[in-house]
Amino acid sequence: MTSSSNVVEYGYVRTIGLPFEEAVKRTEAALKQEGFGVLCQIDIQAKLKEKLGIDFPRYTILGACNPALAHQALGDEINIGLLLPCNAVVYEYCDQIHVGVVDAVKMLSVVGNADLEKVARQVNQSLRRVADRVAEDS
Amino acid sequence: MTSSSNVVEYGYVRTIGLPFEEAVKRTEAALKQEGFGVLCQIDIQAKLKEKLGIDFPRYTILGACNPALAHQALGDEINIGLLLPCNAVVYEYCDQIHVGVVDAVKMLSVVGNADLEKVARQVNQSLRRVADRVAEDS
Repeated sequence: MTSSSNVVEYGYVRTIGLPFEEAVKRTEAALKQEGFGVLCQIDIQAKLKEKLGIDFPRYTILGACNPALAHQALGDEINIGLLLPCNAVVYEYCDQIHVGVVDAVKMLSVVGNADLEKVARQVNQSLRRVADRVAEDS
Repeated sequence: MTSSSNVVEYGYVRTIGLPFEEAVKRTEAALKQEGFGVLCQIDIQAKLKEKLGIDFPRYTILGACNPALAHQALGDEINIGLLLPCNAVVYEYCDQIHVGVVDAVKMLSVVGNADLEKVARQVNQSLRRVADRVAEDS
């Protein structure tokens, strides 16, 4: 195991010992195992090259959504789509590959809805298992 | 003009007098006019039907990104992809169509990075113009 962990203010990030593409694949698979579908995948490196001509390291955003939890959240708060889906990211930084997941409790704290916090706690547990699984298999 | 406005804790929402599909098209066009590309489009109604068999009103999330501002934000904060893109939503609620945009200052306040707040303020000005433009043309 070559991984280390890192808690940022608004997410949970692990440094891992896998090639970038493999890390993306495993993150998708781990999200699926936790009941999250990937609703969108954004290649930041390609976008910045296309739009600004800038060379940026590899950086992929995976927009993940657990349909049952999203449905519950929308029932509590119709505007919550403004803060969905929950992201996982895989990126290259300082010659290492990192897998991060958003802190849904922190992100959804801006809403100020106690019912939503329960859902966010469930999301967080699952998302952290995703990052841990990818890191521990590396 | 048949629209009204509504500030929620974490976004800015306007009720508009356009059919749903037209509202989505005009929101996309207004985002483009403000320099935002739509990096992903999520049809919540279709997803909830597909995954849970639930009938939910029409609800579309548009993940919008201004490449120059995203690049600046990533320079300030490598993990910011966890909170990107900035969403606009178009949805049906109580027999009316609503267009909302996220409050980027509020959303990015969880990061606690003053440099980022400046970028978020710029994003907010543009996103509110988007919602206003769609509403005022309706």
